Amino acid sequence: MEQASLRDLNEPLIDHAEGQFFLNEAFKIIMEEVLSNGTDIKQKVCEWKEPEELALLLDLGVRETGEPRDKLLQRVRDVAKYSIKTSHPHFFNQQYGGVDYHSLAGRFLTEALNTNLFTYEVAPVFVLMENEVLRGLRQLVGWTEGDGIFCPGGSTSNMYAMNLARYQRFPQVKSQGVWALPRLSIFTSPESHYSVKKSAAFLGIGLDNVIFVKVDDRGRMIPEDLDEKIELSKSQDAVPFLVSCTSGTTVQGGFDPLEHIADICDKHKLWMHVDACWGGSVLFSKKHRHLMKGVDRANSVAWNPHKMLVAGLQCSALLLKDTTNLLKQCHSANATYLFQQDKFYDVNLDIGDKSVQCSRKVDCLKLWLMWKAVGSTGLEERVDKAFIHARYLVEQMKKREGFQLLSMVAPVIKERMMKQGTMMVGYQPLGNKVNFFRVTVFSPLLSQKDMDFFLDEIERLGKDL
Amino acid sequence: MEQASLRDLNEPLIDHAEGQFFLNEAFKIIMEEVLSNGTDIKQKVCEWKEPEELALLLDLGVRETGEPRDKLLQRVRDVAKYSIKTSHPHFFNQQYGGVDYHSLAGRFLTEALNTNLFTYEVAPVFVLMENEVLRGLRQLVGWTEGDGIFCPGGSTSNMYAMNLARYQRFPQVKSQGVWALPRLSIFTSPESHYSVKKSAAFLGIGLDNVIFVKVDDRGRMIPEDLDEKIELSKSQDAVPFLVSCTSGTTVQGGFDPLEHIADICDKHKLWMHVDACWGGSVLFSKKHRHLMKGVDRANSVAWNPHKMLVAGLQCSALLLKDTTNLLKQCHSANATYLFQQDKFYDVNLDIGDKSVQCSRKVDCLKLWLMWKAVGSTGLEERVDKAFIHARYLVEQMKKREGFQLLSMVAPVIKERMMKQGTMMVGYQPLGNKVNFFRVTVFSPLLSQKDMDFFLDEIERLGKDL
Ligand SMILES: Cc1ncc(COP(=O)(O)O)c(C=O)c1O
Ligand SMILES: Cc1ncc(COP(=O)(O)O)c(C=O)c1O
Repeated sequence: MEQASLRDLNEPLIDHAEGQFFLNEAFKIIMEEVLSNGTDIKQKVCEWKEPEELALLLDLGVRETGEPRDKLLQRVRDVAKYSIKTSHPHFFNQQYGGVDYHSLAGRFLTEALNTNLFTYEVAPVFVLMENEVLRGLRQLVGWTEGDGIFCPGGSTSNMYAMNLARYQRFPQVKSQGVWALPRLSIFTSPESHYSVKKSAAFLGIGLDNVIFVKVDDRGRMIPEDLDEKIELSKSQDAVPFLVSCTSGTTVQGGFDPLEHIADICDKHKLWMHVDACWGGSVLFSKKHRHLMKGVDRANSVAWNPHKMLVAGLQCSALLLKDTTNLLKQCHSANATYLFQQDKFYDVNLDIGDKSVQCSRKVDCLKLWLMWKAVGSTGLEERVDKAFIHARYLVEQMKKREGFQLLSMVAPVIKERMMKQGTMMVGYQPLGNKVNFFRVTVFSPLLSQKDMDFFLDEIERLGKDL
Repeated sequence: MEQASLRDLNEPLIDHAEGQFFLNEAFKIIMEEVLSNGTDIKQKVCEWKEPEELALLLDLGVRETGEPRDKLLQRVRDVAKYSIKTSHPHFFNQQYGGVDYHSLAGRFLTEALNTNLFTYEVAPVFVLMENEVLRGLRQLVGWTEGDGIFCPGGSTSNMYAMNLARYQRFPQVKSQGVWALPRLSIFTSPESHYSVKKSAAFLGIGLDNVIFVKVDDRGRMIPEDLDEKIELSKSQDAVPFLVSCTSGTTVQGGFDPLEHIADICDKHKLWMHVDACWGGSVLFSKKHRHLMKGVDRANSVAWNPHKMLVAGLQCSALLLKDTTNLLKQCHSANATYLFQQDKFYDVNLDIGDKSVQCSRKVDCLKLWLMWKAVGSTGLEERVDKAFIHARYLVEQMKKREGFQLLSMVAPVIKERMMKQGTMMVGYQPLGNKVNFFRVTVFSPLLSQKDMDFFLDEIERLGKDL
């Protein structure tokens, strides 16, 4: 071997002391910019820049040579500065605002440990922990046994449920594809999340085979219409196999009547899936869990602790009532390089083959640590408070004139608020009605003054319109 | 409103001072246990416990009430202690060993900022950054334009490629499902990653329609056999639409001959996908990029910086040559609550609808910061060094007697190494041959003494067998 390569072999390319120093400095910046300034109501939620200007400011291009430490730390600072402060109390824009420090500590630890949920061998702690967290969530659903898995987001959880429902009814789909099956149909409400449609397209079932069931004026599926639509679909030579209900619709927060839907699923022998990505957390609340009455009769439930519980992205659980190892049968490929059968421990702990992913991030630790920190009671309190906030907002809005008229000027108000950076809230059309603002108010950081701020600020931004 | 709820409204549920104190303490533990002790060759790679014992030690159950700070910090310590030290120089077990501190700083920042790649509005920095990083990767592939997206793992990237190939050829699949299509067939080598099979099952194409092309003794697809298999499939009334080549097979590290395969794809007008999840990083190396000669002729490339580049889980890019917005057309659902068309900025920056996910984690920052820190030259050096290490190991193994005989005793050696915690390396059968150890040696932390340690340790663990 030549001299050069021998020298190469003797020098690791990473300098731990320098690396740890950098990480320490970066941590300080994160603490200051993201967690202290970023949650301070006297500071802006966003520092709006037009895309071209921002690209220049950030100097994003990657190059041949590296950069010195100080420059890199400045980059960390810039990324923080120009990013949206999603933990800020005035970020009402999406279903993931706020911060929980225990969860965040769990996320840092997850990143540092950098492992994968393949096998007990590479993730002994997390295989057991995921199991336990899933058990805890299933218990809230009302199941003493079952199965489950964390997925990279609720859309994937919903997609898994669809694939499992199909496989349970027609296991030959795995080897022969959809050609071996009759045309299938899926039932959901038009208020359901778009991932139901995306899943149907992706799995080869097709958008046309997603049938929309009518909703009432609160956005809840009407069971009688479901029954009729199922009969109609059968009469058109399709085979209904899945009803995807929603607990907490994305825009209106509606809860489908699960008991009634369960009766219909029983009658027609359909897989009942509950997309509780948004609303599932009400199961922690004695006061509000009635909204999901009947959920224990479902076959599967998708639930995103990264939304209402502020566990941090990504954290989505798919829960199954099944006890026949359907998940593994449906998804497994039995790769010999990972899932050797001659191991010295119980290979049922090698849960990787339950997923269609190979590498799978650890998403349970953040939720587990937060749950340990505040207990189920602490999480219940957060849910209850979110409802109190929502009720307060509605009451106050009724008292203020002009809030009904907002809708036509929503895009203008939105532009003003972004450019001034004072708060963020999303707007959207509802059905064929005009635009309205959707305020999410579940963050555990919020208090009454933030609700009042929201109302005042909307008025201020829109007063000349 | 009652008194109780009014009080509730006035008190946020999060105490920032306490939270930030906790995070600081947790950070110190991470530094000490995971990054200092965890990379120290005098310390163990793993602290093996039987599952039952570990579950007891960790006290995993979640409860009604929360726990005090000290107990929670002890939990952070325990999780670190009993987890595998994947950054340890003697973790040769998987394709993600090692640590890069710049990447890790990027991951912490990502977690603290906690946002989503839906829209420019919620992720201005990251929408532009992802764009730029994808451009940088595409440039290495040899494309001056194109498209792409980060996916939650290489399996998902491969699956996306399959779905895109299908949609491009038969766009009606999105609305009508697979029933509207002729039976399709996919070509790959038996050495390809199992995600090709998982994808075919998931997308409704079916395992039987994945056709395996013969490989040579280094695990590389034989182009002549590919051509024959395509003809055969056509004669059996299937429609070939995709060849999934591999650059860096999972077990043997083989590189399929892309130029030859591209000719055949041209001839039959098939989508050419290159699964370069493992091997893609050779494109950084002037010395080794010839292994992927012809990759610029592909339609899509999947590449995992979370593997050879140690960017941290998850970091997988799907790169596309397409300039017709195929990705968005194929995956979009046009949800009005996210992707309003009356926005005050260019809505092409709202990239969320390119994904079948809704929430999508920011996976680009860690790679970007690392790339800025060491430059393309720094990454090239890491790749070159990985090859030097691999070559050194092979040479040394030839010199040592007994290494050929290892295979029968691999499971025993594995058990001993885990229980003693001195190192970790995976073993597996290769085709119908017996077991062998697969050593991954790309971590930038490694030097010659780690290679020697590996060899000595295998001998020590197996000497009485
Ligand atoms: C009801 C509902 N289901 C599913 C999802 C999708 O979850 P994710 O964003 O994690 O993919 C959402 C997200 O907004 C949702 O509101
Ligand atoms: C060649 C190849 N392709 C794809 C994958 C899957 O990547 P991921 O684990 O990110 O899903 C792997 C992982 O081992 C691989 O080796």
